[in-house]
Amino acid sequence: MAGNTYGQLFRITTFGESHGPALGVVIDGCPGNLSIDLDFIQAELNKRKPGQSEITTSRNEDESFEILSGIFEGKTTGAPICMMVRNNDQRSQDYSHLKDVFRPSHADYTYQTKYGIRDYRGGGRSSARETVARVLAGAVAKLFLAEKGIFIHAYVSQVGTVKLQTTPEQIDVSNIEKSMVRCPDENTSNQMIELITETGKRGDSVGGAISCIIKNAPAGLGEPIFDKLHAELGKAMLSINACKGFEIGSGFDAAQAFGSAHNDEFYVTETGIHTRTNNSGGVQGGISNGEPIFFKCAFKPVATIRSEQQTISNQGEEVTLLASGRHDPCVVPRAVPIIEAMSALVLADFVLRNNAIN
Amino acid sequence: MAGNTYGQLFRITTFGESHGPALGVVIDGCPGNLSIDLDFIQAELNKRKPGQSEITTSRNEDESFEILSGIFEGKTTGAPICMMVRNNDQRSQDYSHLKDVFRPSHADYTYQTKYGIRDYRGGGRSSARETVARVLAGAVAKLFLAEKGIFIHAYVSQVGTVKLQTTPEQIDVSNIEKSMVRCPDENTSNQMIELITETGKRGDSVGGAISCIIKNAPAGLGEPIFDKLHAELGKAMLSINACKGFEIGSGFDAAQAFGSAHNDEFYVTETGIHTRTNNSGGVQGGISNGEPIFFKCAFKPVATIRSEQQTISNQGEEVTLLASGRHDPCVVPRAVPIIEAMSALVLADFVLRNNAIN
Amino acid sequence: MAGNTYGQLFRITTFGESHGPALGVVIDGCPGNLSIDLDFIQAELNKRKPGQSEITTSRNEDESFEILSGIFEGKTTGAPICMMVRNNDQRSQDYSHLKDVFRPSHADYTYQTKYGIRDYRGGGRSSARETVARVLAGAVAKLFLAEKGIFIHAYVSQVGTVKLQTTPEQIDVSNIEKSMVRCPDENTSNQMIELITETGKRGDSVGGAISCIIKNAPAGLGEPIFDKLHAELGKAMLSINACKGFEIGSGFDAAQAFGSAHNDEFYVTETGIHTRTNNSGGVQGGISNGEPIFFKCAFKPVATIRSEQQTISNQGEEVTLLASGRHDPCVVPRAVPIIEAMSALVLADFVLRNNAIN
Amino acid sequence: MAGNTYGQLFRITTFGESHGPALGVVIDGCPGNLSIDLDFIQAELNKRKPGQSEITTSRNEDESFEILSGIFEGKTTGAPICMMVRNNDQRSQDYSHLKDVFRPSHADYTYQTKYGIRDYRGGGRSSARETVARVLAGAVAKLFLAEKGIFIHAYVSQVGTVKLQTTPEQIDVSNIEKSMVRCPDENTSNQMIELITETGKRGDSVGGAISCIIKNAPAGLGEPIFDKLHAELGKAMLSINACKGFEIGSGFDAAQAFGSAHNDEFYVTETGIHTRTNNSGGVQGGISNGEPIFFKCAFKPVATIRSEQQTISNQGEEVTLLASGRHDPCVVPRAVPIIEAMSALVLADFVLRNNAIN
Repeated sequence: MAGNTYGQLFRITTFGESHGPALGVVIDGCPGNLSIDLDFIQAELNKRKPGQSEITTSRNEDESFEILSGIFEGKTTGAPICMMVRNNDQRSQDYSHLKDVFRPSHADYTYQTKYGIRDYRGGGRSSARETVARVLAGAVAKLFLAEKGIFIHAYVSQVGTVKLQTTPEQIDVSNIEKSMVRCPDENTSNQMIELITETGKRGDSVGGAISCIIKNAPAGLGEPIFDKLHAELGKAMLSINACKGFEIGSGFDAAQAFGSAHNDEFYVTETGIHTRTNNSGGVQGGISNGEPIFFKCAFKPVATIRSEQQTISNQGEEVTLLASGRHDPCVVPRAVPIIEAMSALVLADFVLRNNAIN
Repeated sequence: MAGNTYGQLFRITTFGESHGPALGVVIDGCPGNLSIDLDFIQAELNKRKPGQSEITTSRNEDESFEILSGIFEGKTTGAPICMMVRNNDQRSQDYSHLKDVFRPSHADYTYQTKYGIRDYRGGGRSSARETVARVLAGAVAKLFLAEKGIFIHAYVSQVGTVKLQTTPEQIDVSNIEKSMVRCPDENTSNQMIELITETGKRGDSVGGAISCIIKNAPAGLGEPIFDKLHAELGKAMLSINACKGFEIGSGFDAAQAFGSAHNDEFYVTETGIHTRTNNSGGVQGGISNGEPIFFKCAFKPVATIRSEQQTISNQGEEVTLLASGRHDPCVVPRAVPIIEAMSALVLADFVLRNNAIN
Repeated sequence: MAGNTYGQLFRITTFGESHGPALGVVIDGCPGNLSIDLDFIQAELNKRKPGQSEITTSRNEDESFEILSGIFEGKTTGAPICMMVRNNDQRSQDYSHLKDVFRPSHADYTYQTKYGIRDYRGGGRSSARETVARVLAGAVAKLFLAEKGIFIHAYVSQVGTVKLQTTPEQIDVSNIEKSMVRCPDENTSNQMIELITETGKRGDSVGGAISCIIKNAPAGLGEPIFDKLHAELGKAMLSINACKGFEIGSGFDAAQAFGSAHNDEFYVTETGIHTRTNNSGGVQGGISNGEPIFFKCAFKPVATIRSEQQTISNQGEEVTLLASGRHDPCVVPRAVPIIEAMSALVLADFVLRNNAIN
Repeated sequence: MAGNTYGQLFRITTFGESHGPALGVVIDGCPGNLSIDLDFIQAELNKRKPGQSEITTSRNEDESFEILSGIFEGKTTGAPICMMVRNNDQRSQDYSHLKDVFRPSHADYTYQTKYGIRDYRGGGRSSARETVARVLAGAVAKLFLAEKGIFIHAYVSQVGTVKLQTTPEQIDVSNIEKSMVRCPDENTSNQMIELITETGKRGDSVGGAISCIIKNAPAGLGEPIFDKLHAELGKAMLSINACKGFEIGSGFDAAQAFGSAHNDEFYVTETGIHTRTNNSGGVQGGISNGEPIFFKCAFKPVATIRSEQQTISNQGEEVTLLASGRHDPCVVPRAVPIIEAMSALVLADFVLRNNAIN
């Protein structure tokens, strides 16, 4: 109810602040007897980690996790799974200069107004470091989905004005991790890296977009009316820090389309019922139709930049702010595993919801 | 859980099928002592009604509503409010030709797969006629918000390739209802009407977009992490039939922006704390900051067109489909009150959620 | 959230007031393809109806129901099922004498305090007439459970000081409906009728108890920790008007038992695993173990009596109250179908919840 | 949904197994700016701890807790509060003898059936050690309620056949903690201790009952229909290990009462509206009326006894079981803080739910 829980049946609750003792998640509702591959979870976590490449921040976050409950002899028991990551550099930095200032386009002002108090150290609860917990939970959801043959692939499709031109069906997912920016096309990837590097040198930040394709999801996932599959995907993605837009299938392009061209005609093959086009993005009437599910998310440039900005203090006085330390000039590459994690959580939940009535 | 309920504290559950006995909604959680203006509710309902103008379908849907509970001597009592609209032409049309066919880009196939049964008359539960219930509930939410000075204005900002060029702050909301397509700029409105008329003559349909601005929402609405204000708005909008995309504030344009230009700097005036720009769309860290909230939604062209389409039957045989009857060539104008209704429901829920902790 | 919804997956929301236009329920989450026997539902409704026998009130409540949604060609479609009963005598009685008075042990004072307004006609939302909606929904849940072989039998086991001596396993459930008070033992039944008749003549009311046995529930229903099967049953029963106590299996007698005698030893037969005794009442660790589930509920005497009582007005003035009209001197017999309905709703919900993870 | 979460707005999720790495809880929804008294929380935890006195087990459970999130400079921030207790003796005992056996009246069989797997070490998730997490959360809820002047006092009112004769209003709550069994009457307390000691010597266990009184709860708490205050209290108490019955106010005695004697007449004093009797136990129509709230819970004797018992193995073979180690012959004294914790959680949730609409 207070917003820290996601999902109905495969349900997660995250906790923790950027500079508190730990960040973690409780997964409630994961079925029993699922084998938990610890190395896989760690690998997922590493994808989100800062300092992976020359274009990301070098903050040395410790990303080793601990399982506190719910796993017995390598398998889930049906009991809640709590996993956490300790914050090592909890007290290493001085954040007192942020105590009284509302940073532009951050959550400082809104948290202070809502709660009458805020943990100002590194953004506290509003820090993107909270997504560590989502990635942990998403990794378990991925293991659950993998047993059903469902796989999720997100990749960077835009950085600033550099856009990937290929469609989701055309991309080779095995190329994603080969790219420092997680763009599966080498040429586009290089242009993105160049733009990010330049932007970083200027002390600025730049936005981008991530596309995602979900393969082998069976028809029938999603609930009609309010909890449509793409509505939940939309909510899940928009809940990620800095995400400003979401579109499924043809998305905003659909606004200028004509029905005669946009409709996805059905046909039958040996493998079952399919559609000749996939403007629906795999979802019709809010429910998956067995085609690949794909969607795209827009991300704003990170708010923290190494340039002077005008803003105000707690007391309403005008102040000039200059961020210290190193910050990612573009977070989109590191948001890829978070998009996948949230997608996995949405899908796992709908699989269980569909089980319930079948 | 089965997707027919929206909201946590101001919570609605809708029911009904396009050609069943009735459509309706139960609102649970509306505070007591709210004055209910029946004429206002009827006026809201009329905005969604078909046959309002020459560009919409002339199906004569009866939109008079009945209140079944929760109102006593003109006021809410805190008890659940049930409202419904009877379907008059329930048996007037023959839908047997749809019994065995899966219409392209409709929910026929996905519902059949999910439930093993479907009410095929006019789309049954998946019909956009379900939104009658949302508009009824949204009208009550609007009355609740109006007491707090919060007002919501949606309008058509795109039909096909015709786009409104003015920003949300620039538009004159009093012009919206003067336009047959609910576009507040007369010139753009005329172009939209022309495009819709032409499209209809060809037996085709066309997509569009709706923008929405929410005025006077106080700072503090929305919950951090998963239930961010714009994430819930996104879910609510994407749950509307034919909605394919959602963006808040700068939205997809943010993907190509630089942080130095995109950040919204704070400043102070006599009326309080404001931001010089509003790329955030009134939401920072998932919580309203007191600036106007604005977002935009993309709608695909309606799937029902008066042209032959190839598709398949229940038995997997290829069939040719030709829709009979009259259908809107563009639903976007009639979706405007639905966008407002869903926005009102999201806001009312967050007002109550914020009350709880303050 | 506002208390009018019960269940997680097989979820109901009730609406309506004693003297409003209608009472009804929306069931959300009932699987598709369930055959709906309208006569069965009507028969269930009739069991709750006043005026069934000489010991109940003769208020002529119309209990014919209408289905508004969710049923197509005699079967559920997976869409929400709305059912309602119109209130015929809505304006037939004058309740203005209750407008300003807080009746003892009724909800008048607490509703007024909570909501700042109340529908005083016949208790409004707090009237036991609300249970019409529960019985409607419970009938659908019973149809769902019957397909799985699960049956529920409640019966009156106490009226005032008259107690049924036989255990749940010993009773012949086919005798329940033969008794005017729904007590399966003829002799005890007669004593109960005598006590109720005498009490009614004195203008007084008397309490009682209802026992319930659930047969053929499979092992595995119920969730650990907070949503234990008997905890949900307890909540569901205690939510019924006038219910003051709940016990599962050995219940309050367990407080004076020794473990050596109380433990239910396991053994194996051809039909599977059983326990030699059933002090657990079919539930261990919050989860059904395959044995019959049984529990008991205590009901207070109805608060409305035909004798003068001292109380206060809205303005805090002392007033003398004398109830007019006819009222049941003992509601326990008519509460039997409500106990069964709530039990069916609890069980149906847990069946779906268990499906989800299996 | 999977049963490990309690509450709607003041919501907790517990995790952990008896012999896993840790037990803990996440509280989501606690308002910001609440001062957290760590010593108070530790004191609450100590009340539940084994080995407090000669009549409880001497298992040396480490009950020191750690706060992982949600507290900043001694105050809540509105973010989720995660607290945990490490299990020190995690591997110290050998539980392999329980791997293949279903202990009578334990959850071994039902968990195995439900999940197809179980953590058999010390009962795993079904162990009463899980209540550590409830006590931690309950302590925070108590701090929240204390700011509003609401206080909760539970005490042992029965052990086996030894019953406390005084009413909830008569007892002196300051005497509770003076008694080793938490019974506020010295004479009765001594008889209880004697019975427990004797029972323990015989290798047996004995049941009991706990009463609870809540003081200064304002009128208006609780929701009508399903989420009645006493229905939620009932669910919360019945969710505690070994609890078999719950009654509010007059409870099961109400079954033999007459309305003329049972009704609680209203009157007015300088301090407001009161009732002359309190058979309602402070709750009318499911909502608190401002009088003291009181209820009683029955507990069965603990299932683990130091005597031979017949049972079966995983493979359905008959086996003889003899529990090793030390076990409490009566858990009721140690359940007192758990009853208080669950009561505090129920009340805190209803306070927030009531805030939402007022």
